[in-house]
Formats: sequence, structure tokens, C-alpha cells
Amino acid sequence: MAEIKEVKLFGMWASPFALRVEWALKLKGIEYEYVNEDIPFNKSEELLRLNPVTKKIPVLVHNGKPLAESMVIIEYIDDTWTEDYSIMPEDPYDRAQARFWAKFADDKCISATFGVFTSIGEAQQKMLQEARDAFQTLEQALCGKQFFGGDQIGYLDLAIGWFAFWMPIFEEIASLSIVDNENAPLLKEYFARILDVDMIKASLPPRDKIYELSKQRQEQFLSGQFKP
Amino acid sequence: MAEIKEVKLFGMWASPFALRVEWALKLKGIEYEYVNEDIPFNKSEELLRLNPVTKKIPVLVHNGKPLAESMVIIEYIDDTWTEDYSIMPEDPYDRAQARFWAKFADDKCISATFGVFTSIGEAQQKMLQEARDAFQTLEQALCGKQFFGGDQIGYLDLAIGWFAFWMPIFEEIASLSIVDNENAPLLKEYFARILDVDMIKASLPPRDKIYELSKQRQEQFLSGQFKP
Repeated sequence: MAEIKEVKLFGMWASPFALRVEWALKLKGIEYEYVNEDIPFNKSEELLRLNPVTKKIPVLVHNGKPLAESMVIIEYIDDTWTEDYSIMPEDPYDRAQARFWAKFADDKCISATFGVFTSIGEAQQKMLQEARDAFQTLEQALCGKQFFGGDQIGYLDLAIGWFAFWMPIFEEIASLSIVDNENAPLLKEYFARILDVDMIKASLPPRDKIYELSKQRQEQFLSGQFKP
Repeated sequence: MAEIKEVKLFGMWASPFALRVEWALKLKGIEYEYVNEDIPFNKSEELLRLNPVTKKIPVLVHNGKPLAESMVIIEYIDDTWTEDYSIMPEDPYDRAQARFWAKFADDKCISATFGVFTSIGEAQQKMLQEARDAFQTLEQALCGKQFFGGDQIGYLDLAIGWFAFWMPIFEEIASLSIVDNENAPLLKEYFARILDVDMIKASLPPRDKIYELSKQRQEQFLSGQFKP
């Protein structure tokens, strides 16, 4: 019999949502086994069994029990391994604010960025303005802090941090800029700061491979071969 | 000077999202002042000042500090008034599952129901299948329990319970059925059960007014006068 590890993460090497969960596990110092899924076209039977509802990665399996949705998994990790590093803010109001902004980032920033990336012409210009506005709004949540979590990375950093790595790649492919010194200077600085955190730096996928895959996906979206 | 109450809820009498928060406040026995906003066309300056990011109700103001997003507010209420009634499940895994399903209901069930309600012909048939599938999936989370929260109403009931009142109204207006004895019999029974809870029953808006407003909104959506 193969050894069954206590914590297993079903992810995909190029998924920022799986990376969010990896960051949470690393912050807590939890050992885990990583299962790389071939998404979106060749999902394993095990993944479909573990997450029949949304059929998406990431899925965290802890003591045989599966959980899906990256931000839900992150709260579970923080709720379960309560010693050492705290991911959620301690104060209920700060906790609520972190959840509010994480939802804002997922609802507004992601969809607008995706819209910019998968459209052209006038439609793209409209999405570009929407994306720039969304990130400018998001910047407010920094409130002069080092990280969204304060002096150290917290829940909202796990929600947003991946943009620091992916956004310049998207911007390069689409030949435009969303988060820049003019539009969101504090967020731009934050992007540099979070990419400089050792744990984050060491966990990033190869830039050239993400560039290549993103370019390929963009072409598929623009030609209608691939749908979200 | 007017008296400033400790807890103030900015809602709208016909909003199920504001009602979710009212239910949480009532479960906890928290006194609050209700401010009825004239949405979507005539929002008060105070609302825009309190929630400049999404400009939406509900907004809860506690000791002068504003919070938005109904499910975020509900967790805040449970985190802040910790005595007596527990809204969130105690076990971290159950808590994560409740959050997962609440997100599923908000992402899938609401958008599919909305799609059915604001389309016609073939597009409506497609959305109808999607909505029926979504509610059939959601039903699984009941797992033979009285309420999603178990023997008493919890977080997921606050997320979903409003469908019990609104769904038959939508179904009547659109002349079709989404949650019925064939498609989701357990959920249909659950709808009857939650509407029979005294606190819920006493807090519902007048059915004829909701019917009238929903019909009016549907006509506006279908004619393109009103956008989500």
C-alpha cells in the first residue's frame, strides 16, 4: 500500500488559485503532497470524485476529507492549524474587511483583468478602464501598510499576491498596462515587495512557461476555441 | 442630536440580501435600527459614503464602523456577539463546507435563477436546466438534516433560506418550476420547513408587493431598460 499523507493538495502547476493554498500551507509549515492535475481537459477520476460539485482545483484533502474553493480552504487551514502563524486578522472587524476585499478582488479585479486579456478593440478599452479602476480601488485596502495583512502576509495577501507575478505577464502579452506607477503606484510597490518575500519567491512557477501558456490560452479564448 | 444606535442596518425592504443580515441579527437578539434605501436609482449620500466600493446594500454599521457584503456581515455578527446562538458550525470542516455551499448558492443558484427569470425561448430553456441542476446539487448539502445548519438554522440557511419565499414567486411569474417535488423534493420540503420558523415567518415582506416588484423588474430586464 502506498503511504497516505495526512495533507494532499490537488492543484495545477500554473494555477494561481492552487498557489494561494500552497502559500497558506507553507506559512503554517504544513507538509503536504502535491498532485498536479491536467486541467482543464484531462481531469483525474480522483479529482472528480473529491470535488463533484465544481470539479475544479484546488482541492485540499485532510485526513481523507476533501475541501474545495481556495479562499475557503485557506480559512480552514487557519482554523485547523491554530498554532504559530495567523493568517486571518485577529480582530473581527479586520477579519470582515479582509473577507470583503478578497471577494472584491475575486469578483471585480479577476473578471476585469480576464476581460482585458480576452477581448480586443473597443470592448478591450472598456474592460481596461474597468480593470484599472478596480485595482485603484483595491489599493485603498493597503492603507499605508507593508502588506494587506500588516507587517506580515495574511489572508488578503494570499488572495491578491498572485497578481504581482501574473499581472506583468498579462500586461506584456496584451501590450498594455493595468497596474502601473500612474494608476496604482502603491499596489505596484506592493507587487515588488511581496515578490521579494523568500517563501513567495521560492514557490513561483517558471515565468517563461506561464508566459507561453497564457499566450496560448489568450489565442484560444480570442478564437473561441476555449471558454471560461 | 438624534440618538445614535449601536447597530444600524442599511437595507431595502425587498432585498433578500438585507433580509439575510436581519435574520442573523434576530437570531442573536441584537437590537438594530433599519434604514430603508431607495435602490437602485436613488441611493442616499450616507450609503455611498459608508460603502463607496460596491455602493450596495446591505451595509451594517456597528459603533460607527461600516461593513458590506451580506455573508461577510453575517460572519462578523457571529464573530462579534459570541454568546448564545451560534451561526457558524463549530467544527472547522463543517464551517468550511458551509462557506463552500454558500458560495456555490451565490455563484450558481442565483445566477442561473436570474438567467431563467430574464430570458425567453431557447436561452431560457438552457438556463432552466442549469438552475434545476444547481438546486438539485445544492440539495445534497442537506444530508438528511432538518436545516442546513442541523437541528437549527445556521450560516448556510441564512444564505439560502430566502429562496424558500422568493422562488415560488419567480416561478409563478415565469410560469415554470425550478425547485419542485420531482427535481429537488428534499429542498422543496426544506422550503416549507424554514418558512414555518416563527422568526422567519414574522420577518418576510408582503408577498403581493414582492410579486409586483419582481414582475416589474422582469419586464424592465426583458425590455433592456434595467441592467443587473
